[in-house]
Amino acid sequence: MRRVIAGVMGPGKTATDEEIHLARELGKCIAELGWILLTGGRKYGVMDAAGSGAREAAGTVVGILPDGDTGEMSNSVDIPIVTGMMDARNSINVLSSRILFFIGMNPGTASELALSLKYNKPAILISQKEDVIRAFQSIGYNKLEIAPDVPSAVEIALRIAGKNSE
Amino acid sequence: MRRVIAGVMGPGKTATDEEIHLARELGKCIAELGWILLTGGRKYGVMDAAGSGAREAAGTVVGILPDGDTGEMSNSVDIPIVTGMMDARNSINVLSSRILFFIGMNPGTASELALSLKYNKPAILISQKEDVIRAFQSIGYNKLEIAPDVPSAVEIALRIAGKNSE
Amino acid sequence: MRRVIAGVMGPGKTATDEEIHLARELGKCIAELGWILLTGGRKYGVMDAAGSGAREAAGTVVGILPDGDTGEMSNSVDIPIVTGMMDARNSINVLSSRILFFIGMNPGTASELALSLKYNKPAILISQKEDVIRAFQSIGYNKLEIAPDVPSAVEIALRIAGKNSE
Amino acid sequence: MRRVIAGVMGPGKTATDEEIHLARELGKCIAELGWILLTGGRKYGVMDAAGSGAREAAGTVVGILPDGDTGEMSNSVDIPIVTGMMDARNSINVLSSRILFFIGMNPGTASELALSLKYNKPAILISQKEDVIRAFQSIGYNKLEIAPDVPSAVEIALRIAGKNSE
Repeated sequence: MRRVIAGVMGPGKTATDEEIHLARELGKCIAELGWILLTGGRKYGVMDAAGSGAREAAGTVVGILPDGDTGEMSNSVDIPIVTGMMDARNSINVLSSRILFFIGMNPGTASELALSLKYNKPAILISQKEDVIRAFQSIGYNKLEIAPDVPSAVEIALRIAGKNSE
Repeated sequence: MRRVIAGVMGPGKTATDEEIHLARELGKCIAELGWILLTGGRKYGVMDAAGSGAREAAGTVVGILPDGDTGEMSNSVDIPIVTGMMDARNSINVLSSRILFFIGMNPGTASELALSLKYNKPAILISQKEDVIRAFQSIGYNKLEIAPDVPSAVEIALRIAGKNSE
Repeated sequence: MRRVIAGVMGPGKTATDEEIHLARELGKCIAELGWILLTGGRKYGVMDAAGSGAREAAGTVVGILPDGDTGEMSNSVDIPIVTGMMDARNSINVLSSRILFFIGMNPGTASELALSLKYNKPAILISQKEDVIRAFQSIGYNKLEIAPDVPSAVEIALRIAGKNSE
Repeated sequence: MRRVIAGVMGPGKTATDEEIHLARELGKCIAELGWILLTGGRKYGVMDAAGSGAREAAGTVVGILPDGDTGEMSNSVDIPIVTGMMDARNSINVLSSRILFFIGMNPGTASELALSLKYNKPAILISQKEDVIRAFQSIGYNKLEIAPDVPSAVEIALRIAGKNSE
């Protein structure tokens, strides 16, 4: 059976220490499940930390780069997909993921969360602010999953992945 | 001097009567200013209504279609740009507009609002809900412009366009 | 009735004097027909010359830029579409044109000619080398139109546009 | 060290038996080298056969799908990248590959060969017709590599990959 591809989206250079910590923990969990991690591929913030976590657990990391080359790629990426299309690649991030996790929030991440709702992809928000949750729940007709921490986010994802494969 | 391209973004099939009314009024204003209207190009909701308004005032309407053909195009479109790339084309909508107006909200529209913040494009919200405004202001570091109606939105846009061209 | 959008594709910086001359003549003809000219939008070679020709005849020029801004845009462009997606935008050039003309040849132009065949778009080759014609005729199952000069290319295009609109 | 990503491009539904045979042989060789195979991801022709060959040798197959879902995906694909952008995804195929092999020829394949030349990517033609070789050599200033069969194509690729990593 094909391995689940799980996207982890979040801020790059502006990620907080807590977001980086959560991303690394989540990346590790995804790898331990035998799932493939998909990120935006750059060497900053949540993308980079999730990739490092997956690497620690010998996982596979796919990085969908906005750039036209690998100059700013995270070292954690096994399989760089070089799109050269700036944030138009966010659409590919979402379409290619069976489930998406969101840690932290900034404009690029918000566009990916919005597209998850548009494309009917399961989106799990981890440790997000109340006003962001409320706004996107109203935009997405309450289709979001909310998790306070990584273990509960993973539990939700397992339930969703199980349902999808039945 | 090159004409200003003003994007108008908002829901398609799910647009409310009020949003359609506002979009038509705004499309007309944009055309009367001699600006070019840019929309998502489809024959539904805000895109279609803004285009119709611009047409009434003999304006030019550019439609950036997500589809691979013009089968679902609004009749108001003068210049169809056929992208065939689903919502990856939202990135083109934003990059190609000097100023963007947002009427109503849904997942596709939210992705365009988020990308406006990402690409540092002036974004003017018309008649939006408080929770959406608050969330995107926090995501975008307060870079949004808020207007209660079309005339005040146009006033804000004129101020911005004037500044940019100086 | 919606105006025909005619694409003119060809080399940028490496265009020859003859190609630039032909492109300017063709751009002018397209504008005189009341058609919209679509190019790659940059300030070099065939794109730039076709645009200048169309401008002389008061035509409308749409430029589909590969860049993320208008820094290298041709002055002839009325309506810049900023894609920020490098040569992935070549697919948009082809999908958005009802008819495509090819003057001169280089790798980018060849990709647009190939996509014209892929998407079943009428492609008219002007003043091309025999080996290029023969290769693309075999690749495209003889669907190409061959013209020795601009007037005969325009004649072919008129015949095609007439057929399509009937 | 990161594994080499090798693209294999060629016709889908119209591939000949010989092309399918060559693609399967090449896919197997790529996997045996420990390289990652990248294809267009669909369940037809060269893409599908190269993937099957790689699978036989326990390789990894990345499929860059033009579609918005995996409905027409080859069973050989381990990692589907869902672009939803028709043949604009050909640009991603090329940018993401360190080396590209071309077996058979049709319009989509020709656009990928042209973009390989545009982006300065090593392109190796296997068992191609003389007129196609000659045309693309003139378009690409003789930058193409020509191989009569799979073993010699792989030898060329090894030489190129060795040079690049030094």
